[in-house]
Amino acid sequence: MSPLCQHTLLEFHGCDPAQLRHARKVRVLMREAVLRGRGTIVKSLFHNFSPFGVSGVIVITESHVTIHTWPEHNYAAVDIFSCSEKLDHKAIRQRLRETLLARRVSARSFSRGKLPKNLPRVNKRPDAR
Amino acid sequence: MSPLCQHTLLEFHGCDPAQLRHARKVRVLMREAVLRGRGTIVKSLFHNFSPFGVSGVIVITESHVTIHTWPEHNYAAVDIFSCSEKLDHKAIRQRLRETLLARRVSARSFSRGKLPKNLPRVNKRPDAR
Repeated sequence: MSPLCQHTLLEFHGCDPAQLRHARKVRVLMREAVLRGRGTIVKSLFHNFSPFGVSGVIVITESHVTIHTWPEHNYAAVDIFSCSEKLDHKAIRQRLRETLLARRVSARSFSRGKLPKNLPRVNKRPDAR
Repeated sequence: MSPLCQHTLLEFHGCDPAQLRHARKVRVLMREAVLRGRGTIVKSLFHNFSPFGVSGVIVITESHVTIHTWPEHNYAAVDIFSCSEKLDHKAIRQRLRETLLARRVSARSFSRGKLPKNLPRVNKRPDAR
């Protein structure tokens, strides 16, 4: 079976809470990390929660990258979901580790969309019309 | 260790491709499924890809629900990420199975944000300011 995509679930612990509090800052950090990973950004959406914490998503041509932050716990959950070998998951992980000042990062990776091998593959995720 | 959130990865195979092609329709299906699961919608973002396929995300107070569709393969990948016991993952899964007319659905579930038990938990994910 040939998977369509790869999905990495990341846990960033012991982060600097100042990097996790505000949507504007988290958006900048995430966009920069995605570009480091050679992602092609389509749209993004970031939201502040009250009293603190951010949820955000960057839709990329390769699929998406999401983040949820808990500054009160110095913790952020990040997902990298991509359907192109071009996207460098490790580069994104490494860059976020640096910018979030995380003490510990754990990762789990999964295949998504396992299809029979003899099915033709249409062009992966080209740019939108 | 007490996890902050639960994350369900869903694979919908053998779907009706007509339900997977256009952002407008996928948005409606997803929003309705999230409401069935008692999710509180904050914002959503859906995007058509060329020649076909949709990527979408619904940010909820409980965190997020995402979808990526491959109508050419009758397949959709859905993620449900929630930090509140209120969100009913199974109800969302069941509703999408019905509306996407999926022949087969597989699920994997994971805990996210395992913290030491003695840390105080701040109010989970209240509504935004």
